[in-house]
Amino acid sequence: MMIETPAAAAALLLAQDDILILAHGHPDGDTLGCGYSLCRALLAAGKRAAVSCSDPIPSKYAYLSQGIPELTFTPAFIVAVDVADASLLGKKNESLYAANIDLSIDPHGSNKLFAKQTLLDAGAAAASEIVLEVIKAMGQTITPDIANCIYTGLTTDTGCFRYSNVTPRTMRMGAEMIEAGADNAMINTVMFETKTKSYVALEKLCLAGMEMYFDDRFALITVTQEMFRQTGSDESECDAIAALPRQIEGVLIGATLREKPDGSFKVSLRTHAPADASAICAGMGGGGHVRAAGCQLEGPKENAKAQLLRHIEQYFAAMP
Amino acid sequence: MMIETPAAAAALLLAQDDILILAHGHPDGDTLGCGYSLCRALLAAGKRAAVSCSDPIPSKYAYLSQGIPELTFTPAFIVAVDVADASLLGKKNESLYAANIDLSIDPHGSNKLFAKQTLLDAGAAAASEIVLEVIKAMGQTITPDIANCIYTGLTTDTGCFRYSNVTPRTMRMGAEMIEAGADNAMINTVMFETKTKSYVALEKLCLAGMEMYFDDRFALITVTQEMFRQTGSDESECDAIAALPRQIEGVLIGATLREKPDGSFKVSLRTHAPADASAICAGMGGGGHVRAAGCQLEGPKENAKAQLLRHIEQYFAAMP
Repeated sequence: MMIETPAAAAALLLAQDDILILAHGHPDGDTLGCGYSLCRALLAAGKRAAVSCSDPIPSKYAYLSQGIPELTFTPAFIVAVDVADASLLGKKNESLYAANIDLSIDPHGSNKLFAKQTLLDAGAAAASEIVLEVIKAMGQTITPDIANCIYTGLTTDTGCFRYSNVTPRTMRMGAEMIEAGADNAMINTVMFETKTKSYVALEKLCLAGMEMYFDDRFALITVTQEMFRQTGSDESECDAIAALPRQIEGVLIGATLREKPDGSFKVSLRTHAPADASAICAGMGGGGHVRAAGCQLEGPKENAKAQLLRHIEQYFAAMP
Repeated sequence: MMIETPAAAAALLLAQDDILILAHGHPDGDTLGCGYSLCRALLAAGKRAAVSCSDPIPSKYAYLSQGIPELTFTPAFIVAVDVADASLLGKKNESLYAANIDLSIDPHGSNKLFAKQTLLDAGAAAASEIVLEVIKAMGQTITPDIANCIYTGLTTDTGCFRYSNVTPRTMRMGAEMIEAGADNAMINTVMFETKTKSYVALEKLCLAGMEMYFDDRFALITVTQEMFRQTGSDESECDAIAALPRQIEGVLIGATLREKPDGSFKVSLRTHAPADASAICAGMGGGGHVRAAGCQLEGPKENAKAQLLRHIEQYFAAMP
């Protein structure tokens, strides 16, 4: 069932107690910002509430959860935030909760409506935009801690207000969060201005090995397990790598092929208009957004690369 | 003389005609955004107006000046925008106009008060914030063209709303410019998501040669004329390089040493708190802001590097 307004979601939450909030697996700043801001607001409203994620939370996000107690109760009401499909909860929480999600708060037009009730706003640049409206509708004060969480969500999903998903609402919510005490300088330093030495070493290798195809309209970076070993880096640092190929002038489609421990490959595609990342990845059994999408391919490397190149070539041949 | 309010500056401008607006040399998106937005507003108010810059305008900024006529009149009133000191006008305009600037609109607390009248707002993240207030005080409509100019200025000087200089006002002005028709997605793609092949080649060389000193708290990139020759890149692509050293985890001071055609070196310093870039550069005859400053050093490379390292070592030894 669809919920029409943030106010209706707020009323639903205020009528419940013992609320567990689920972030998606391989958590990012938006799902965690949503989870911990909503949790803080529910605690302030006198509820028992907690946040759970199937995967470890990167240490750079420690400020989001500071002071929030762990789950010590039996959940009576379960909310998923920034989760388009129960399978994205990650192994642990999917097996525990997938069948019993009471409420989904989500900005993805592709939401599978897996929850009993869904608050969907596909015009939101980040789930945090929707959660902020719910918290305000609950009548809760936006504390500096909540502001840090929401600001982190906004900045995560917009590349710090850079991407085409940003609306005037996104910008005004950013303004409001800074006024409410969000430490925007600290958050953006953590999120965008800090590269570990291992990441820099990995980036060097990736740039050195970047390949160009199809009249330089396609750029490809391949990241292998051997490169992780050589640099001390790992999968968690690959999001920033995925942005690199599309940044080259003239490139319409940028891709990274990332070898997983089992030898298969994860493809991350980023496009400029008019190339449609979602359509290309759908052709390889994956999906996502128009400008960013992904899929899985079988190894070894030569096989994954050949398959990807074949699909890209076909796409260019048929491109409007 | 100081002008107290944007409204007073607007009244002053509306009482004039044949207005020439000067951008600073080596122009960036803020000085050009200011210049062309103010020029458009003055033209709309029925004035003759033009923009001049001592140095060539990078082609990526062509959209800012589209449709604006060249200077074809004898200027009767001269305005400098985003210029803290007449020497920053660049050679041509400094020699032509430095003694006769009527109005300076500027966000730099260090403004040398070289103009007859100065509208200074050191709390502005970009000169474009101040110019927007002046244009609004002139009663002019914010057209999509003006919105593109102002948005470009805001995004240039804040790293797309990322840096610590951003205030709620900056964010709200960004929202307002998007509503007024600024093509934020296009502008940010041009400004932040596009790297030329020559830049990528230069970045690879720079990262490969980056050096770490003083317990890895200082990172140094040296860019030589030979590296420009090797990659096809040039000085105009070095702003992004200057941001790289400070991004390494644990680095407090990041520096680039850039060789100029005459064999001297330009130092660009970027810091994290508590290191003060302005204080360090002042010790070498330069200046700037707390987080970003610069100075010049004599070549050859070994000499410039030794001098810089000596100053950094002294600074760390005395750092609070």
